[in-house]
Amino acid sequence: MFDIIAFDADDTLWHNERHYTEAKERFKSILTRYHDQEWIEQRLDETELQNLKRYGYGIKSFTLSMIETAIQLTEGRIIGSEIQEIIALAWEMLGRQMEIFEGVPEILRELSASHRLMLITKGDLFEQEAKVSRSGLSDYFTSIEIVSEKTPQSYCAILDKHRIRPERFLMIGNSLRSDVLPVLEIGGHAIHIPFETTWVHEMVPEDVLKGRNFVSLDHLGQLSDWLNERTGRI
Amino acid sequence: MFDIIAFDADDTLWHNERHYTEAKERFKSILTRYHDQEWIEQRLDETELQNLKRYGYGIKSFTLSMIETAIQLTEGRIIGSEIQEIIALAWEMLGRQMEIFEGVPEILRELSASHRLMLITKGDLFEQEAKVSRSGLSDYFTSIEIVSEKTPQSYCAILDKHRIRPERFLMIGNSLRSDVLPVLEIGGHAIHIPFETTWVHEMVPEDVLKGRNFVSLDHLGQLSDWLNERTGRI
Repeated sequence: MFDIIAFDADDTLWHNERHYTEAKERFKSILTRYHDQEWIEQRLDETELQNLKRYGYGIKSFTLSMIETAIQLTEGRIIGSEIQEIIALAWEMLGRQMEIFEGVPEILRELSASHRLMLITKGDLFEQEAKVSRSGLSDYFTSIEIVSEKTPQSYCAILDKHRIRPERFLMIGNSLRSDVLPVLEIGGHAIHIPFETTWVHEMVPEDVLKGRNFVSLDHLGQLSDWLNERTGRI
Repeated sequence: MFDIIAFDADDTLWHNERHYTEAKERFKSILTRYHDQEWIEQRLDETELQNLKRYGYGIKSFTLSMIETAIQLTEGRIIGSEIQEIIALAWEMLGRQMEIFEGVPEILRELSASHRLMLITKGDLFEQEAKVSRSGLSDYFTSIEIVSEKTPQSYCAILDKHRIRPERFLMIGNSLRSDVLPVLEIGGHAIHIPFETTWVHEMVPEDVLKGRNFVSLDHLGQLSDWLNERTGRI
C-alpha cells in the first residue's frame, strides 16, 4: 500500500508546543510590572510571526523574539538582568527532557516491522537533531529529514531523493498546514492527528479544507487498525 | 578519478568570517564605555565557544552570545536600547548581500561540465539555505547538504546516502578541522584552500597534521590544473 510512512515529530510523537506556552507564561510574568498579560502575549505573537521570515523556526528564534518584544514593550528601559531571565528560559527549553507521547515507541516498533518509516520534521537543524537523538526513537526510522519549511516543494525534494511515488507516500502529523495540505497537493496521502493546542502560525482557515481528502484520527494508537482496514487485512 | 567533488561554502566560495569580524568590532564599540576592547573580545569569544554546544552555529547563536556577553560585562546594567543595537547587528548580518569570491561561478561552471559537484556546508539550516539560494550557484551542484557539524560520521552519512566510496570523494574547503581532517579520516581526499582569517574554533594544532596526506592550494583557480595533472590529461 505505502512505500514509506512518514511521521511529523513535534506534537505528533512528543510534546513541543507546551514548552513554548510555558515559556510565554514565564515571559509575561517577567514583564508583568510594565504591561497587562494579554497585551504582552499579543505583541510577542506578532513579533514571533514577523521574525519567522528573518530567523526561521526554533528556540533561538523564539528567544530573540522574546528579547525584542521585551525591549519594545519597555521602550528600551528593560535592563540586562531581566533579559538574562529571558535567556535562562531558552536554556531551560533547550535542556528539557523529552516527553514522548504514550505508546509511541510501541507503535513505531510494531509498524517498523512491516513498513519503512521516515521522520520529517521542520525547524532548527541543531535543535531537531538533538531532540531526535535524545528521543531514543531514531532507530525506528530508515531516514530522518529535517527541513526549514514543509511545503509541496520540500516534500517533492524528499520523495525525489528517495525515489518514492507520491501515491505510495503517507504522512502523519498534527499540523494541517505543514503535514497534511502540502502532501495532498503533491498527490500523497495524509493522516491528521489533532493535538490539544495548535500554534496560531499553523492554523488554516476551514474553507481551505473543502474537498480535501484526508483522514483524521484521534490518536496514533488508531493507526494500525486504519492501515489494516485499508489493506483489507482485518 | 572522483565520483563527486564537494565544496565547502563559507569562506571557500563566499565571504562569511569577515561579517562576524565586522559585527564584533561594532559590538565592542557598543560596550566601549564599560570595558576595554581586548577584554570584550576575549569574553565574547569565550561565550561563543561555550554556547556552540548549546545553540549550534550561525548568526542567531552568535547574537544570543553577544547579548549574554553584554549582560555579563555590564553586570546586568546594560539597557534594552543598547541590546536592540546588538539585535540590529544580527539583522544586518542576515540581510547582507552575498560576496562570492572572484572567479567562483566560472570555476564551478567549468567543473560541473565534467564532474558531479556537491555543496557541503555546516551551520544553521535556515541561514545556510538562504545563502545558497541567494548565491545563485545552486544549479551547479547535483546535491546540497547542510549539516550541523562536519565530523567523520556526518561525512560517512552523506557518502552512504549517495552511495559514494570515500576513495572516489574529494572535499575542498578552507577549514582543516571541518573540511580536511574528517574526510581524510574516512579515507577520502581533501584539498585545503586557506582563507585570510580562520575562526579560533576552526583552528587545529599543527601536530595533528603530521603524516596527513592532503593538498593545499592558494586559491580555487588552481583546482582545474591540479585535477588535470592528476588524471594525466595535461
